[in-house]
Amino acid sequence: MEKITLGIIGAGRIGKLHAANLAANRNVRIKTISEVKIDPKLNDWADSLGIENVTEDFNEILNDTEIDAVLICSSTNTHVSMIIQAAEAGKHIFCEKPISLDYCESSQALDAAQKAEVKLQIGFNRRFDHNFKRVREAIMEGNIGDIHIVKITSRDPAPPSKEYIQASGGLFLDMAIHDFDMARYLTGSEVVEVCAKGAVLVDPVFSQMGDIDTAIITLKFANGALGVIDNSRKAVYGYDQRVELFGSEGCVSISNDFENNAEWSTSDGVFRDKPKLFFLERYNDAYIDEMNQFVESLLNNMDVLVSGNDGLQAELIAGAAKKSLDENRTVLLSELKATLK
Amino acid sequence: MEKITLGIIGAGRIGKLHAANLAANRNVRIKTISEVKIDPKLNDWADSLGIENVTEDFNEILNDTEIDAVLICSSTNTHVSMIIQAAEAGKHIFCEKPISLDYCESSQALDAAQKAEVKLQIGFNRRFDHNFKRVREAIMEGNIGDIHIVKITSRDPAPPSKEYIQASGGLFLDMAIHDFDMARYLTGSEVVEVCAKGAVLVDPVFSQMGDIDTAIITLKFANGALGVIDNSRKAVYGYDQRVELFGSEGCVSISNDFENNAEWSTSDGVFRDKPKLFFLERYNDAYIDEMNQFVESLLNNMDVLVSGNDGLQAELIAGAAKKSLDENRTVLLSELKATLK
Amino acid sequence: MEKITLGIIGAGRIGKLHAANLAANRNVRIKTISEVKIDPKLNDWADSLGIENVTEDFNEILNDTEIDAVLICSSTNTHVSMIIQAAEAGKHIFCEKPISLDYCESSQALDAAQKAEVKLQIGFNRRFDHNFKRVREAIMEGNIGDIHIVKITSRDPAPPSKEYIQASGGLFLDMAIHDFDMARYLTGSEVVEVCAKGAVLVDPVFSQMGDIDTAIITLKFANGALGVIDNSRKAVYGYDQRVELFGSEGCVSISNDFENNAEWSTSDGVFRDKPKLFFLERYNDAYIDEMNQFVESLLNNMDVLVSGNDGLQAELIAGAAKKSLDENRTVLLSELKATLK
Amino acid sequence: MEKITLGIIGAGRIGKLHAANLAANRNVRIKTISEVKIDPKLNDWADSLGIENVTEDFNEILNDTEIDAVLICSSTNTHVSMIIQAAEAGKHIFCEKPISLDYCESSQALDAAQKAEVKLQIGFNRRFDHNFKRVREAIMEGNIGDIHIVKITSRDPAPPSKEYIQASGGLFLDMAIHDFDMARYLTGSEVVEVCAKGAVLVDPVFSQMGDIDTAIITLKFANGALGVIDNSRKAVYGYDQRVELFGSEGCVSISNDFENNAEWSTSDGVFRDKPKLFFLERYNDAYIDEMNQFVESLLNNMDVLVSGNDGLQAELIAGAAKKSLDENRTVLLSELKATLK
Repeated sequence: MEKITLGIIGAGRIGKLHAANLAANRNVRIKTISEVKIDPKLNDWADSLGIENVTEDFNEILNDTEIDAVLICSSTNTHVSMIIQAAEAGKHIFCEKPISLDYCESSQALDAAQKAEVKLQIGFNRRFDHNFKRVREAIMEGNIGDIHIVKITSRDPAPPSKEYIQASGGLFLDMAIHDFDMARYLTGSEVVEVCAKGAVLVDPVFSQMGDIDTAIITLKFANGALGVIDNSRKAVYGYDQRVELFGSEGCVSISNDFENNAEWSTSDGVFRDKPKLFFLERYNDAYIDEMNQFVESLLNNMDVLVSGNDGLQAELIAGAAKKSLDENRTVLLSELKATLK
Repeated sequence: MEKITLGIIGAGRIGKLHAANLAANRNVRIKTISEVKIDPKLNDWADSLGIENVTEDFNEILNDTEIDAVLICSSTNTHVSMIIQAAEAGKHIFCEKPISLDYCESSQALDAAQKAEVKLQIGFNRRFDHNFKRVREAIMEGNIGDIHIVKITSRDPAPPSKEYIQASGGLFLDMAIHDFDMARYLTGSEVVEVCAKGAVLVDPVFSQMGDIDTAIITLKFANGALGVIDNSRKAVYGYDQRVELFGSEGCVSISNDFENNAEWSTSDGVFRDKPKLFFLERYNDAYIDEMNQFVESLLNNMDVLVSGNDGLQAELIAGAAKKSLDENRTVLLSELKATLK
Repeated sequence: MEKITLGIIGAGRIGKLHAANLAANRNVRIKTISEVKIDPKLNDWADSLGIENVTEDFNEILNDTEIDAVLICSSTNTHVSMIIQAAEAGKHIFCEKPISLDYCESSQALDAAQKAEVKLQIGFNRRFDHNFKRVREAIMEGNIGDIHIVKITSRDPAPPSKEYIQASGGLFLDMAIHDFDMARYLTGSEVVEVCAKGAVLVDPVFSQMGDIDTAIITLKFANGALGVIDNSRKAVYGYDQRVELFGSEGCVSISNDFENNAEWSTSDGVFRDKPKLFFLERYNDAYIDEMNQFVESLLNNMDVLVSGNDGLQAELIAGAAKKSLDENRTVLLSELKATLK
Repeated sequence: MEKITLGIIGAGRIGKLHAANLAANRNVRIKTISEVKIDPKLNDWADSLGIENVTEDFNEILNDTEIDAVLICSSTNTHVSMIIQAAEAGKHIFCEKPISLDYCESSQALDAAQKAEVKLQIGFNRRFDHNFKRVREAIMEGNIGDIHIVKITSRDPAPPSKEYIQASGGLFLDMAIHDFDMARYLTGSEVVEVCAKGAVLVDPVFSQMGDIDTAIITLKFANGALGVIDNSRKAVYGYDQRVELFGSEGCVSISNDFENNAEWSTSDGVFRDKPKLFFLERYNDAYIDEMNQFVESLLNNMDVLVSGNDGLQAELIAGAAKKSLDENRTVLLSELKATLK
């Protein structure tokens, strides 16, 4: 396998982003992209990237024997069905997060991929970020000793649209799920207990949707460490993505990235520009790396760096957080896992 | 009242610290200091500061009509009794934190002070820190809009002795109590709900004492905000005291203070010295300011800046945290307040 | 002109870098690259980037009527002749810095380009850096008022080889020339006076070559501002590229870029990784932007962002610095300009 | 000598500052302070500090056999005469900088002190700053290897009054003199060569006085290192006092101190308050330390930490800078030293 032939299902924002990044990878041929409803603008865009076919029927991708792997970038409610069909068609799979809004269904998708012996990578792009990667490696080498406390701050610059919120699965499954994965990734330990507190402080529309916009989630890990995640749907100063790990031998913290490092001193004080605006700016390089690593896993027949199980575990934590908030109590992960079989 | 005449009950570390700071205040005469067991070294020290009398009988202070106010720096289990006696003797009072290990008893001490119409200030020194004060003022002016999330990090450089731990009242009453006060001080809002998670990760001795050494405590405030405090008894890099407040219009964070700001770039990386070692170093100026403000309150007959009620409220939060940890559930402050009458 | 067809003269490190960056630009066709001596490895590399021809005869490029523009990335001593021939062949030109080691010859190259009415851009890549660009824009808008002092720090991580030093034209023409350009770029003012101090502190080999490895160069600008540049051939902590501008209304400073922003606190102190290693790491994005802007200037028939005159002026300042060092006196730029006609 | 008895000549701003700091030193008795013209307010102030006598005749101090040492805080033009008289009276001496505006006269003052075998300390307060001290010690231990480049930034928040400027001796003797001393102190090497560039960019009044308000001064040290100092009489963001030392094994930089470390992130960017306003705020602790160390030198009969020669050397560099500016050439320190004998 000298060059990978890919199909992309879904040409929304994230599907287009991955396509553009993959188009610059000399080991990749993007043969087909499918979208529910195509228009001339989409055709032009695909053309400019050298994508050969644009179709409204994703089966053209699944049935194409030239295609080695598919990217599932369609809406979340289609993910499970797509994974199962792609697996049955023998395609390797990259699927955006979350796998689904129901971890039991997600589990079935994992089974299908496993049975078909195809690779399945989940879109936790932050694992490919230069800062987080650097820290993960050093922690695994023991640089801060045993981990005692993990703190993750994750705040969006502005809330999404009402329509987006409605289909999102809620703050835990849509937004905090990245942080749940980061908690597992950086500690190398599984979460065993979740206690979530939530509030609607940003916009009452979240209440109307039965959702929250602000949260503090406490975690207990299998290795004994404690963790806490704080989320907000609106940070006026931009995307706020920071992590701190505290252990027996020290502490490491990762701060935000900035567009520039110029510092201005005036009679009003000292200032600098805000952090990078949102995920497209902050994780631009991580998205590129995510795709290149997926392609490399295929080319060299290696394990993917973010497995289907990673996707499932994060969904279980999200489920426990939801249950904790609803029932106002600490929830054990084992309670949810018991329902999986 | 042109000059305040003071007595100090207790000549341990903190009593001596306050004495030295007060000795530099030209409006203060320290007439007497009492300690359970005095020795020549203590006499020499008192002499060097110009303290007139050293005694083993604190009643010499309480019965001295020249003495306007007393500092209670004796062991915690004597605080309530001392406050009540000092109040009855008509002395204004500065008492170290916590008032007691039992908020019902603390409440009685407050009643005694109120009945006697004497001032009662509690030793929450951090309120006088240059960083925290600057932030409190700006928050009260609305600089970050409505507060949504409060995060407090509070870690000691090294655990105290076994004896200290045993008498301390536990992590919540001994250590986190400062953070509970800071949470109230910075938000200007009361805590209504507490959920505490604890662990013994630093030293098994804490388990033996029925105590913990690591904690994450989630708070809900009357104004709707959420908060989280993380504590550890051992941060190898020194005293770690940071705060972050996040609101509708922005975010403010306070970092540690350092002995110097020199930054070294070498072939190994970029480094600087550790933060200030512990509370004596970090809050040196705050301790001075605390005493000067107490004296000023007396001189000008103004309200003290940290009231007896501030001491009581922090103890109630500590009590709720303990109950939350013991019963593994969220505890409402109202549950504890109901037991006060 | 929908797509630009380019030829590249010189397939050394910088030629290859530009080629790779241009290969990702969808508006560019790289038709031919020439190198004095080609080998199979070079052919493979060119093939992988989709470069159509590899040749040992640069005339194949100059005589190719399909080629719109050339990149001159050959050794410095060939630049002037290449510019003149390319201009006569009607090609637009991008030429690496310096134009030559003799500003009189450089001036002749400029004349040739002007006479032929072809565009000529000089490779001052730092102008395209995100930090410097941000500052330049704000300064031009008056954010720090009138400029009083400019300070530029520019230090390489390690000295080049003996062979490189010998052909380099010396520290001023090889290294500081970027800083001379940056001084003009950030202030928007011409240098009128130069006073240079130099030393050999890094390696005696520089003495043997009649060169220096450490320098402090003071500048006076037409607008009255003062400036100072400090250079070293060896900073053990990596590439050190900083700028500070001080004016009537404030000060702005630009610091180094880092591979990651993780900060480690341990019992030894607080650490972070070193700055980015060297120019390829630090200015990676700037090199991409430089090429894209050059292509855009051609596509839209706009002025290039770094003109031949910018190249010449920096060489004049370098010449004045050399003269200042040699004669141990302040040198006026006008002294050198007088020799140009 | 158990307690030092001091007299202070001059009760201006700096005389009062030293008096207040010394009043808190338990080893010091301030017996007398003299001022050209005394008023009731001065008497009250002296009284509040426990200073026993206030006089208009400094001879009361010089003739008082109880007085061990004098602080010379009178106007600069009286320093030399005061030093000589105090030395003849057998008093140890602390004298504010500069010793005089004429290094030949200063040299005579040094001779007098030496002949009388009294201690003479010069008021270079910055040597006692926590940041500079930390760096000096580490540099002396070789932490950055051999020093190659020294950079000192020293800018005042606002220009002094016209009267002050007139009597000041000019920017080099009044302001940069601290930086000349810092250059010697941090490198541990003597300056051998000076080249100064100056400008009037802040206020034309400096021109009228034959002075400058902006300067860049290049230094060459005996150990081969190069140095540069930049000065401005007006930095709108406050007192700007930074240092950078670059050597064969690394680089160290010292930044400004701030009143607080709160960092604000809002929709406009990231902010913090300005640096400390001016020397009284920035060097408050250094002034205290300076006095305590002077007293300790007397108590223990040790060498003072800033000698008369340190004062003289800084004046010689200032003189060379003035000559360099006036004659537009590099000046060797040896030229000035030759005139001393």
